[in-house]
Amino acid sequence: MDRLSLNQITTNGWSLPEAVAGCAQAGVGWISLWRDKVAEVGVTAAADMVRRNGLQVSSLCRGGFLTGVAPDGSDVDGIADTAVAIEEAARLGAEVLVLVVGGIAGNDLAGSRQRVADGVGELVPLAARHGVRLGLEPLHPIQCAERSVLSTLDQALDIAEQHPAETVGVIVDEFHVWWDPRVEQAITRAAGRIAGFHVCDQLVPLPDPLLGRGLPGQGPIEHRRLRACVEAAGYRGPIEVEVFNAELWRRPGAEVLAEVISSYAEHVA
Amino acid sequence: MDRLSLNQITTNGWSLPEAVAGCAQAGVGWISLWRDKVAEVGVTAAADMVRRNGLQVSSLCRGGFLTGVAPDGSDVDGIADTAVAIEEAARLGAEVLVLVVGGIAGNDLAGSRQRVADGVGELVPLAARHGVRLGLEPLHPIQCAERSVLSTLDQALDIAEQHPAETVGVIVDEFHVWWDPRVEQAITRAAGRIAGFHVCDQLVPLPDPLLGRGLPGQGPIEHRRLRACVEAAGYRGPIEVEVFNAELWRRPGAEVLAEVISSYAEHVA
Repeated sequence: MDRLSLNQITTNGWSLPEAVAGCAQAGVGWISLWRDKVAEVGVTAAADMVRRNGLQVSSLCRGGFLTGVAPDGSDVDGIADTAVAIEEAARLGAEVLVLVVGGIAGNDLAGSRQRVADGVGELVPLAARHGVRLGLEPLHPIQCAERSVLSTLDQALDIAEQHPAETVGVIVDEFHVWWDPRVEQAITRAAGRIAGFHVCDQLVPLPDPLLGRGLPGQGPIEHRRLRACVEAAGYRGPIEVEVFNAELWRRPGAEVLAEVISSYAEHVA
Repeated sequence: MDRLSLNQITTNGWSLPEAVAGCAQAGVGWISLWRDKVAEVGVTAAADMVRRNGLQVSSLCRGGFLTGVAPDGSDVDGIADTAVAIEEAARLGAEVLVLVVGGIAGNDLAGSRQRVADGVGELVPLAARHGVRLGLEPLHPIQCAERSVLSTLDQALDIAEQHPAETVGVIVDEFHVWWDPRVEQAITRAAGRIAGFHVCDQLVPLPDPLLGRGLPGQGPIEHRRLRACVEAAGYRGPIEVEVFNAELWRRPGAEVLAEVISSYAEHVA
């Protein structure tokens, strides 16, 4: 249980002070912070709250959008925004800054993917200077158009391997990679590069491509099999429970956190 | 234009006689039939209508569900059902019987995939006897749990290559494979095995994981790039426009078919 981390999106109804206090009270030692929640209190105050409550920050979500397109299709300067996020991650003492790289720009998939590789290369010196590790997170192929042209672990590794492992790693998120016929080989290949392991489940039938996720045990994902792969590849860090689910978000945070803990104990630990 | 085929699901509001007459009238020489529509008139009558109208059948949709689970989660004998479909395909003169292999059974992904490989092996002698080519269609990973544990072209080829190319091929459906970082290599690998090329687009934002498709040109898929790959791999057969879209299904078939023809001419041909 000492590896369990609450990804703050799972208790999206909670503010940062509520989530930090909730974790401390429930005995959860790790938390993954989201930048919009951090911004509500300010980076310095957030870092202070986390420290005073004895928590560690498994990751900061999120930088990226290096293709220059936001999920709603509007233009965004992902490089500049991620540079800011790198400094925030350093000040928060986050182990990793998660990168969601952005969707397709100008209906040019190959070009969009090249922009991601180039953008990561541009950001590496700044991340290294701040001692922040970038975590490239491949998202499920269903989000290729809108959120992430990085669709598989192999593809994320092709980019990460061009840089030092302590500065660029990959995030293994079960929802995004469980279906991949190459997932076991890719995780093996990722040895030394795994910058995070996120667990949740896929709801069946799937109500929504973005929010159709549940707590571990509510769907077909084989959590212990994937955890074994990740550990065989040497990863011993925090395990985030990260669930995008609108119904969960409407419920009281403490109730959700209690279910996070029990589902993690039953299906993952 | 002589390679354009109307996949009957695109004009789902039309019965088989209507679709056949509609194609003949519009000068579309190919049609892909769905078994539920065929069943409404009977196989013999359907084959006769197609012949009298001078059409060719690019494929019959669909056999499969070899994992033993239907999309609604109920049990199904996919082998027995596909054996029936093979005979129907032969009687209809279909070039290919499309296989949707079925979703995950018992939360055992590796076992489910093995059942698919075994099931194809079981069906090959019957298909060969009837001169019917089985078309293994990898579906988008978002449908892994419910409809198809076959998620990539490479994975379909791993199975197909165990059998003669004239009996087991693969279907390249743009919606299902466009995001795959390996799609070009996989299509190249598929030379001699391509049993169908299906075009459509992905709607952005995606309204629904199953029905969120549009006519070519309505989304980010690079149709001419993929068509060039498929042709470089030697495929010269019919190109089906296959669109799952509830709004399209409510409109008059002739109107939809006219848009199929114009979008194909503009974005694919």
